[in-house]
Amino acid sequence: MKPHPCPVSIDRRSLFPALAALVILFVPLLPVSTLAEAPSTVDALPSWNDGAAKQAIVNFVKATTDKSNPDFVPPEERIATFDQDGTLWVEHPIYSQVVYSLDPVPAVVRAKPELASVEPFKTVMSGDREAMATLTTHDLEKMLAATLTGMTVDTFNAEAKKWTEGAKDGRWKRPYTELIYQPMQEVLSYLRANGFKTYIVTGGGQDFVRFYSEKVYGIPPEQVVGTAGSTKYSYDENGKPILTKEPKLLLNDNDAGKPEGIHLMIGRRRIAAFGNSTGDQQMLQYTGAGDGLRLKMLVLHDDAEREYAYGPAQGLPDTKVGTFPQDLYDEAKNDGWIVISMKNDWKRIFGFERAP
Amino acid sequence: MKPHPCPVSIDRRSLFPALAALVILFVPLLPVSTLAEAPSTVDALPSWNDGAAKQAIVNFVKATTDKSNPDFVPPEERIATFDQDGTLWVEHPIYSQVVYSLDPVPAVVRAKPELASVEPFKTVMSGDREAMATLTTHDLEKMLAATLTGMTVDTFNAEAKKWTEGAKDGRWKRPYTELIYQPMQEVLSYLRANGFKTYIVTGGGQDFVRFYSEKVYGIPPEQVVGTAGSTKYSYDENGKPILTKEPKLLLNDNDAGKPEGIHLMIGRRRIAAFGNSTGDQQMLQYTGAGDGLRLKMLVLHDDAEREYAYGPAQGLPDTKVGTFPQDLYDEAKNDGWIVISMKNDWKRIFGFERAP
Repeated sequence: MKPHPCPVSIDRRSLFPALAALVILFVPLLPVSTLAEAPSTVDALPSWNDGAAKQAIVNFVKATTDKSNPDFVPPEERIATFDQDGTLWVEHPIYSQVVYSLDPVPAVVRAKPELASVEPFKTVMSGDREAMATLTTHDLEKMLAATLTGMTVDTFNAEAKKWTEGAKDGRWKRPYTELIYQPMQEVLSYLRANGFKTYIVTGGGQDFVRFYSEKVYGIPPEQVVGTAGSTKYSYDENGKPILTKEPKLLLNDNDAGKPEGIHLMIGRRRIAAFGNSTGDQQMLQYTGAGDGLRLKMLVLHDDAEREYAYGPAQGLPDTKVGTFPQDLYDEAKNDGWIVISMKNDWKRIFGFERAP
Repeated sequence: MKPHPCPVSIDRRSLFPALAALVILFVPLLPVSTLAEAPSTVDALPSWNDGAAKQAIVNFVKATTDKSNPDFVPPEERIATFDQDGTLWVEHPIYSQVVYSLDPVPAVVRAKPELASVEPFKTVMSGDREAMATLTTHDLEKMLAATLTGMTVDTFNAEAKKWTEGAKDGRWKRPYTELIYQPMQEVLSYLRANGFKTYIVTGGGQDFVRFYSEKVYGIPPEQVVGTAGSTKYSYDENGKPILTKEPKLLLNDNDAGKPEGIHLMIGRRRIAAFGNSTGDQQMLQYTGAGDGLRLKMLVLHDDAEREYAYGPAQGLPDTKVGTFPQDLYDEAKNDGWIVISMKNDWKRIFGFERAP
């Protein structure tokens, strides 16, 4: 029996998972052996300003990896999960996966010319960016189903590769995969150097993120949990087995879907979790529900100059993309989660900026 | 949005995933460093008789780990998947998870006395084993839903622990977790010593197998793919976040569900796959569909004296539990899969037998 083909409507949030290009950024990794041997003499987090956020990370790693510490955690249980959009890379002004899902539309319309006069394809084909901005959630759902499913997983990977090698963002004019936050890359490396297994837990499409996660973040595909649809096993005309992507949702990896997805895909309670929006709220809550020391952190985008500023927490501009409301901020403060101020805690944002 | 609550009937196969007790068998691991340094002088597979099956394993590992060999595979792509029931441990006369799902029935009936007069609970409560053997698939579905869902994942784990510490099988009078095949334990260790990541891909319940996989097979929970239901995130009466197991199927990890589940949970093509029945057929087919050297093996239970004999391939007795039909045998022979004869290829079956 196949995963049940129940008619599932795709939730709005699942449409906005940011994804990216595959021009690979080789992030300079920290010298692992040096770190392990002399942690106190090497700054594993050079792109972080000294402060409560940096200190919380260092203290947590020291406590959980020191056998004489009551908060020591055996290596196999050192699981850390990271949201992607807005936590590991840029999500504004719009999630990269939305850009990706629109790009193949001309090809889809060429294959099915009758779509040219049907919305939302008509508007997308017009190239009118302002009109495109008015497309509804339902329009985007149609688009996503038309452009990102109905193909074999091998074809999907080939298409993703082609797109990511060519696409660049509008502000920095760089491949999307270079718009990753250098301070968070340092956290990933620092945790791994200390025996942690790092996972991405993203509202983004699991297949897409897996495609570049190893090269961009050093996180192998099997350690990416994302919004996932079902696939269908069959045989092509030559009898060769194939897997085809279907427009049926198995896991919406946002909000409550994050702890649910982590249970499904990992099956262990993580001890550290990083996010930046309401979509990560339940993941951090459930991380905190376990016994023992926990690290729960949220990135606050409060740096309009170097990146973007949005909340609406703390009076920052409101947004529908990566919303960080005041009640999430208050919950963080009340429950001992750490809010990372991009403006104050990060010396630099991107790896392509001059090192501090 | 939660994983969609579609009304899913549980397939018969998902009822029979064998599971087990947690009295831990510390399988003597091979000395990894010795193996890595001098593979030719150490027999990594001492419980295997010399023959085509053993040679195929050794040749495959040598070819894929030798950088000068055209079939070399980088470590991160060395993924091997193993069915559990009948491949790693005993599945006859009945899958252990069925036994497990029946055991809590008295407690369920105590909590809901009205069930005592309703089938299948009435029959199970009678203790009449012959009558129980006549229960239908639908009866078993009811049982499984009543006994293994509707509780938090923490409660499920506690129940599983309690059961597995007490339960013993009828033939060998040992904890189920000792009924694991020593030759396959050696294959797991041998592959891991050579940089492979070993996965269980089982029709059995994912949560249950994960509970003992690390201690029994050296396979961590996050490397167990199994038949999986959804969970629901909520808060208990004290506001503490909880995950509750729901009677809704997300993945039936049998037949075509195995390659589909592997795509969902791992996202890489494995290069070695081991099974023993029709439920593994598509997993082995899809393993073979990739480029490069592959190892595909099936265990044939042809040893009535030391374990069990069933097929119906090769004239062995027919069975509904772990069926190995003649057409699967023929496909294996035609497509270069290796059939392991339990009788001829294995020097001993269990770790508790005297070493050869």
